[in-house]
Parts: sequence; structure tokens; C-alpha cells
Amino acid sequence: MSKFMDVHRGMSGISAEDLNQAHQADLQIQDEEGVVFEHAWADPETGVVYCLSEAPTADAVQRIHQRAGHPADEIHAVSLEV
Amino acid sequence: MSKFMDVHRGMSGISAEDLNQAHQADLQIQDEEGVVFEHAWADPETGVVYCLSEAPTADAVQRIHQRAGHPADEIHAVSLEV
Repeated sequence: MSKFMDVHRGMSGISAEDLNQAHQADLQIQDEEGVVFEHAWADPETGVVYCLSEAPTADAVQRIHQRAGHPADEIHAVSLEV
Repeated sequence: MSKFMDVHRGMSGISAEDLNQAHQADLQIQDEEGVVFEHAWADPETGVVYCLSEAPTADAVQRIHQRAGHPADEIHAVSLEV
């Protein structure tokens, strides 16, 4: 398992409910790819959303996000953390 | 206080020690701007670093990063979190 930070753009105006629903949609199917979504943060003004996860691969993260209806624009393996 | 996610690019090849030293440099002066850096994650392959903080303003975050020698390329007020 590795840690990933993925980025979604074009989400201007996202509400707390939107973010929660999107996160719940990920959580409902994440086990099927062995992904654990830990946190998500959103900036409604610039429309950027960051998701932190533990997953076997970046592709596994993307498959969950795609199936949940919100593919990521970038996925980075963040192998270092402080 | 608000939550911010800032992004540094061009850090390809960053080591665990580099990341730790950069984070410590922020921590040593963060009180002067009322900033609390909580976490940082780095992808040495693509050279992207993400920092999560609590701060009064994005400018306060940037002043600490600039004085520590690593200005951020983007700073987002992440007002939503799950």
C-alpha cells in the first residue's frame, strides 16, 4: 500500500454536501480496489479538491473515482510525509 | 483561522531529509505569523509537495514559506473538509 494525493479541478462552487456525497460514493466502493480514502479538502472558490488515500496503485485510486463519477485530474504517489 | 493547502512544484528528487529540513524551517518561524503547519507530503518523482496548514491568511502561509526559502506555487483556502 502506498499513499496518494489526487487532485480534481473545475469544482468551483462545490458545497459541503457535494463534497460529502462524493466522498461517500468513493467509500462505498473503495474496498473493491483495496483503496482507503482518508481525507478530502476542497476550495470552492478556485474549484480544487484534494483527496488523500492509501491504495495499492494510482490506477486503483482512479478506478474508484471514475466509477464514483469524478475522475481525478492528477494522482501523485506521495511517498514522503512529515 | 482557516485551513490551507499549498503546493510546491519542481522538487523532483526531494529526499525524506530534505522534506524534514524544509518542514522544520517552517516550524521554527511559523509562530511569527500565527501559522500552524500540520502535514506535508511529497512525490519525489513528479516533484510536487503539498503542505496542509491552519493560518490567518494565505499571505501569512506564503510569508513563512518565503522566509524559509521555499515559496509556494499555489495556496488554496480549503474551507471544506471530509
